[in-house]
Amino acid sequence: MKKVMVINGPNMNLLGVREKNIYGEDSLDSINRWLREEGEKLGLELEFFQSNHEGALVDALHEARTRCDGVVINAAAYTHTSVALRDAISAIRLPCVEVHLSNVHAREEFRHRSYIGPVCVGSVSGFGRYSYLMALYGLRSVL
Amino acid sequence: MKKVMVINGPNMNLLGVREKNIYGEDSLDSINRWLREEGEKLGLELEFFQSNHEGALVDALHEARTRCDGVVINAAAYTHTSVALRDAISAIRLPCVEVHLSNVHAREEFRHRSYIGPVCVGSVSGFGRYSYLMALYGLRSVL
Amino acid sequence: MKKVMVINGPNMNLLGVREKNIYGEDSLDSINRWLREEGEKLGLELEFFQSNHEGALVDALHEARTRCDGVVINAAAYTHTSVALRDAISAIRLPCVEVHLSNVHAREEFRHRSYIGPVCVGSVSGFGRYSYLMALYGLRSVL
Amino acid sequence: MKKVMVINGPNMNLLGVREKNIYGEDSLDSINRWLREEGEKLGLELEFFQSNHEGALVDALHEARTRCDGVVINAAAYTHTSVALRDAISAIRLPCVEVHLSNVHAREEFRHRSYIGPVCVGSVSGFGRYSYLMALYGLRSVL
Amino acid sequence: MKKVMVINGPNMNLLGVREKNIYGEDSLDSINRWLREEGEKLGLELEFFQSNHEGALVDALHEARTRCDGVVINAAAYTHTSVALRDAISAIRLPCVEVHLSNVHAREEFRHRSYIGPVCVGSVSGFGRYSYLMALYGLRSVL
Amino acid sequence: MKKVMVINGPNMNLLGVREKNIYGEDSLDSINRWLREEGEKLGLELEFFQSNHEGALVDALHEARTRCDGVVINAAAYTHTSVALRDAISAIRLPCVEVHLSNVHAREEFRHRSYIGPVCVGSVSGFGRYSYLMALYGLRSVL
Amino acid sequence: MKKVMVINGPNMNLLGVREKNIYGEDSLDSINRWLREEGEKLGLELEFFQSNHEGALVDALHEARTRCDGVVINAAAYTHTSVALRDAISAIRLPCVEVHLSNVHAREEFRHRSYIGPVCVGSVSGFGRYSYLMALYGLRSVL
Amino acid sequence: MKKVMVINGPNMNLLGVREKNIYGEDSLDSINRWLREEGEKLGLELEFFQSNHEGALVDALHEARTRCDGVVINAAAYTHTSVALRDAISAIRLPCVEVHLSNVHAREEFRHRSYIGPVCVGSVSGFGRYSYLMALYGLRSVL
Amino acid sequence: MKKVMVINGPNMNLLGVREKNIYGEDSLDSINRWLREEGEKLGLELEFFQSNHEGALVDALHEARTRCDGVVINAAAYTHTSVALRDAISAIRLPCVEVHLSNVHAREEFRHRSYIGPVCVGSVSGFGRYSYLMALYGLRSVL
Amino acid sequence: MKKVMVINGPNMNLLGVREKNIYGEDSLDSINRWLREEGEKLGLELEFFQSNHEGALVDALHEARTRCDGVVINAAAYTHTSVALRDAISAIRLPCVEVHLSNVHAREEFRHRSYIGPVCVGSVSGFGRYSYLMALYGLRSVL
Amino acid sequence: MKKVMVINGPNMNLLGVREKNIYGEDSLDSINRWLREEGEKLGLELEFFQSNHEGALVDALHEARTRCDGVVINAAAYTHTSVALRDAISAIRLPCVEVHLSNVHAREEFRHRSYIGPVCVGSVSGFGRYSYLMALYGLRSVL
Amino acid sequence: MKKVMVINGPNMNLLGVREKNIYGEDSLDSINRWLREEGEKLGLELEFFQSNHEGALVDALHEARTRCDGVVINAAAYTHTSVALRDAISAIRLPCVEVHLSNVHAREEFRHRSYIGPVCVGSVSGFGRYSYLMALYGLRSVL
Repeated sequence: MKKVMVINGPNMNLLGVREKNIYGEDSLDSINRWLREEGEKLGLELEFFQSNHEGALVDALHEARTRCDGVVINAAAYTHTSVALRDAISAIRLPCVEVHLSNVHAREEFRHRSYIGPVCVGSVSGFGRYSYLMALYGLRSVL
Repeated sequence: MKKVMVINGPNMNLLGVREKNIYGEDSLDSINRWLREEGEKLGLELEFFQSNHEGALVDALHEARTRCDGVVINAAAYTHTSVALRDAISAIRLPCVEVHLSNVHAREEFRHRSYIGPVCVGSVSGFGRYSYLMALYGLRSVL
Repeated sequence: MKKVMVINGPNMNLLGVREKNIYGEDSLDSINRWLREEGEKLGLELEFFQSNHEGALVDALHEARTRCDGVVINAAAYTHTSVALRDAISAIRLPCVEVHLSNVHAREEFRHRSYIGPVCVGSVSGFGRYSYLMALYGLRSVL
Repeated sequence: MKKVMVINGPNMNLLGVREKNIYGEDSLDSINRWLREEGEKLGLELEFFQSNHEGALVDALHEARTRCDGVVINAAAYTHTSVALRDAISAIRLPCVEVHLSNVHAREEFRHRSYIGPVCVGSVSGFGRYSYLMALYGLRSVL
Repeated sequence: MKKVMVINGPNMNLLGVREKNIYGEDSLDSINRWLREEGEKLGLELEFFQSNHEGALVDALHEARTRCDGVVINAAAYTHTSVALRDAISAIRLPCVEVHLSNVHAREEFRHRSYIGPVCVGSVSGFGRYSYLMALYGLRSVL
Repeated sequence: MKKVMVINGPNMNLLGVREKNIYGEDSLDSINRWLREEGEKLGLELEFFQSNHEGALVDALHEARTRCDGVVINAAAYTHTSVALRDAISAIRLPCVEVHLSNVHAREEFRHRSYIGPVCVGSVSGFGRYSYLMALYGLRSVL
Repeated sequence: MKKVMVINGPNMNLLGVREKNIYGEDSLDSINRWLREEGEKLGLELEFFQSNHEGALVDALHEARTRCDGVVINAAAYTHTSVALRDAISAIRLPCVEVHLSNVHAREEFRHRSYIGPVCVGSVSGFGRYSYLMALYGLRSVL
Repeated sequence: MKKVMVINGPNMNLLGVREKNIYGEDSLDSINRWLREEGEKLGLELEFFQSNHEGALVDALHEARTRCDGVVINAAAYTHTSVALRDAISAIRLPCVEVHLSNVHAREEFRHRSYIGPVCVGSVSGFGRYSYLMALYGLRSVL
Repeated sequence: MKKVMVINGPNMNLLGVREKNIYGEDSLDSINRWLREEGEKLGLELEFFQSNHEGALVDALHEARTRCDGVVINAAAYTHTSVALRDAISAIRLPCVEVHLSNVHAREEFRHRSYIGPVCVGSVSGFGRYSYLMALYGLRSVL
Repeated sequence: MKKVMVINGPNMNLLGVREKNIYGEDSLDSINRWLREEGEKLGLELEFFQSNHEGALVDALHEARTRCDGVVINAAAYTHTSVALRDAISAIRLPCVEVHLSNVHAREEFRHRSYIGPVCVGSVSGFGRYSYLMALYGLRSVL
Repeated sequence: MKKVMVINGPNMNLLGVREKNIYGEDSLDSINRWLREEGEKLGLELEFFQSNHEGALVDALHEARTRCDGVVINAAAYTHTSVALRDAISAIRLPCVEVHLSNVHAREEFRHRSYIGPVCVGSVSGFGRYSYLMALYGLRSVL
Repeated sequence: MKKVMVINGPNMNLLGVREKNIYGEDSLDSINRWLREEGEKLGLELEFFQSNHEGALVDALHEARTRCDGVVINAAAYTHTSVALRDAISAIRLPCVEVHLSNVHAREEFRHRSYIGPVCVGSVSGFGRYSYLMALYGLRSVL
């Protein structure tokens, strides 16, 4: 079984609380439980990490390097501002998939730039919790 | 069974011939056959259309309006230049998913802008033929 | 009697179907019938053309060159992206009037640039089907 | 009978004197007299105002608010620089039509931006004195 | 007692009439009366001026120079376009506070630039009529 | 009594030490003690938090969500770079007031952009420690 | 004897009071008296006008049109923001010379753009009151 | 003998009719006949294609792929707007030469960007019908 | 002996692991050991700190303020995004030297902007581990 | 008597030959002879230098440093591209006046930027050979 | 026989030495010898000049003015930075052809701008030494 | 012993004279003498060149190609404007180190762009004459 780390960035701990019209009503925990089950069906063992700290997300990626085969990352706000996450993804040389719950291209201009996009394998956005599941399918196809 | 139109834009007819290092070795026909089978497993009946003509793609979207429940579209080069396709997607009011074989964000600057992205439900890029399959999963989740 | 070609661009065939809050409830056919009658009152014989194909619109402008005295054109999405239409208008050397149903300046940034504006006699926007009629008045004043 | 205020901005008092190759040979007075007659045929009673002072144009718009049903405004140079006029038009909540004698899109780059355009109902440009008349037609269609 | 001139720019005379959802229901007069009382409690004697004319606002600032100890200014639309007001504030060498009723940073892009901001002591925005009162507190702290 | 969290961002712990010509001679502790007293006069119970860590500031905002009625935030350097703080402020749906000790618009160009400004109720800048007090007045007016 | 109108824009009435380190210690009146004498030596009869109102400056240029042979204009702040003055200068078709007391190119970025420069004969800047005198020499050379 | 496809884009069918001051008096047919003869002298067999349709030009390039050894292309207006043509040229992996009759760098700003330039072998512009002949020389040198 | 803090930013803990073609094969530990020895020869006592957390780097700079005479900092990714580090360097008023292992100007556009550069004494880039040593020489010259 | 070096940049040796509609019919020699006489009347002894070489102009400025009291410089094309000349003018610490024969602001966009302007005392442009004479007046006023 | 000056700019003396993958293996001398022979066949007598000095290239163009009928110029790096060369080409009023060995549009962004392009008759790029020969054909067609 | 050419660009001959607050009080000669001695200690034989002529600096780089093992270059003003120097450095294929006396990133915006940086091995700036010495250390590490 392949191991995949699923990383969530800032404010994702408020899922189900925060702006429900954009992000839906599921909490991050319930999404993760559902993903764990779906992952197993795909032969993927999932590990979860969430933090509001850019540095902690960098640390998590470094840990994934020695323990996992791939990464699914919803870097949330840091997607648009963090060169550190980009460098971490380049450095660990694992296939990463960029995920967004909402369609970022339909939102503010500054959300159209992704620092991590160019160093990921690919990206999925706009399908709520299904974005993560689709990312797992995609990640499995390149593992 | 839901009906989905899968639309491919300019130069996609050369898949398997054109720049294999970027786009892989599958022909568009073989991808479409595989997708049809996978679609059926998901309860989706697929219809295919490809053209190098922007206007023909607009026409196809108009036809989808009365005959289909959703659209998967790889607008290829027109992604970056066509307001007409954007307006067509807005006009038909069907859920559309934007697809790209390659990770467009890792390519030339002018490929980073998508005119159709903001009016689609979501997007998938970077997973070769799997991008289409993932798009079908995503589309099914919103139908 | 002067002859005028009235040209409509992409997605205008969906008028009355497409986003009614922006474009109103009249179909293109009903607008054209009404315009034909109004045109006759102004001493203008109208000919109509609509296409979703940029090239077909260029072809139509070329035909207008030998058969008509002026052009009213709602290039829709191609207004903002087509140098080919601009060059066609320059080439045929007929007076052309740019028309828009909606107030394009109150919409997305990319709709503020018109490639055809600088080579037209003038423009009218924001008055729904009356935009066409006003364009006919204006065109008559320069014929 | 509906009442309409026709407002002209800076340097329009020199019409018929100023750059005749661009603006034609009619004086503002003769245009206004002609418009008044044409307006009456359309069931519109016209009131005229011209000033070179941005603030005076704002004042005039404020007066139109309680006395008129709509506004036709050729803000001339202030079109491109005045947020104050834009705010005045928003504030009075009357339908306004933007007018230009010349085709501003064929002139200097800085004349392509209109601050007032987005808060007007629509605009007409390029037809000399006929621009005003067409604006009256358009305004009547929305009153 | 210190003397403070409270200056309001274009369209502020329509307060309570103009876009109430943005600017609230108080008229400028009622705000000024309330401010005068609050100012007295703070040991500040207020003088009021409003004009829609950029030049008249410049003149008022010049008068403040010899008669007042400080200025509270809501330059409204001229905030974003007037170098003349900026130069006037620099020239009179009185402490000025920039005020806005609404949160200008949540509005159109062109309202994000303030020509007068860099030459004022500080700024307050977003609190409706309380913005003025807060500005008086702030101004008192630097007098 | 309403509860308000007063949050200070990076390098604010050096207040009174750091660049005194810009930020003054008060330490953050002395400002906070003074604010606590002033807050009580206004019927506001204050809680203080300072960190140099963007993530810790996000965490603090999340905590404010369940424990406080409003927030006063001087995000300092993160004002100009942090989408994460912006999203946190949006997510917690409490009224927040943006505060700056100095007049940021009179400093470097990159300090003119505030990511958090558009999601705050309003902002106060330029009055040293009085900026906080003014923010409390403003916050009280909207609670 | 040729007649020349010398026009000064906003805040120039504070000359000798305002920022002496930039603009020097002469009042506008003393400069004008000196200029009148120097002008006479050059065979030029001078007429002076100063206003803080953009519209009044436009009016003055219109008057110069019928009464003078040339114009020397220090438009001050309006240099950088006024299309209305530019259009007035174009409209009156008199030779105009742009003048600045200080070297505007050594000041803020927004002072580097002159709307009136391209429609003037030439410009002189940086020499304090001598800028006006030099402008008179230059104007005489083209009259 | 090597085979070369000579492709002409939109409005080139009007050569000899359209703006003669820019493009000269030769019709496209007469240029093609002359080129065919000159090509034979160079050992090149020419095939000609012209269309106003972007998609048709893409189709033609695809056909050239299996039938020709090289391409000379005057994409006219599509030079500046078509990513689809760029991708087609990349995809067919034939040496292509970009041709323009006029010196595009001496014309409007938007004609300075060529989407196809970077994927062509080289370019020739400014020599009227001789541009095509020079392109044939150049193409022969790389075949 | 002077004391110098050597600070390394995000992902530098992966040195010797991460992209060896860009950063070389030395681990951060081995570089630090070598630097300590070289530093002693220069009369400098070195202290080392590395973190992936922007806030921790700010904290470290604050500590350096009371304990060291100078700083050598390789802020890595935060070089390009962190105003907080810039403000920390300004605040502590110690001489800092900016260091990069690789030649950042030969990499992506966004790596060309350094927020910390303007507040450092100087910078060294492109010499691998020797960049640090050269920075020590430079720092010693200004201590 | 004060000594002034009059420096002319590239292509100025062709004056009287080159584009006479822009630059007039006087040769550089005849202008210089006339200037020498006029200079003497002003108590200024002139020295002349012309070169098409940027470096030679830098050398000339260095020589002026020890031999002259001021400089009049028409840097022509180098005005817009030469940081070396700017640095030379800064370095020699003599008052310099920037001169242009034509009104550079009425020409191409790239001629609107002057690298040397900000380090000169002032500038004169648009008066043909009189520009030099006016520059001498201005220079004398600051010597 | 017509006389043509062939001018080569900076670093072209290293042809055959410098980056052979871009510029090929021919030395400038061998290219020139070959060109002289080919030129004679075309009835053109060639004269050669190369310099690394911008000013020397300007001088050479001035000499061409009285001695030659046309110019072929590969300005190399100065293509992108020299307004002086542009002005020289305008001044001498000879037909000039711009030449590049490589396809400059496939290289760095800053090589896409040509200062000399708009004042040349036309340009040829991408064909190595054949670019010169093609330029001669083109130049002959306009002589 | 390795040979190194130390090249200094425009205005560096005025070192010790020119703006001492920025560049210090050492003359270029005294720096060079000191460097020669320091170089010898490092096993490097130095050769010096200075010119104010861009072309002469290109020539010097060409000579270095056959006679030296590396280059240290302070291109001064040409750093920011010279593509010719960049191409020369690329062409000679010697390791070059970019040097600046001052911290260019703390100066004007246009000094932040270096054309030569991306083709150098690395750069050192901000340490006065020590910048050269540090560059020698760095250069030795890559020889």
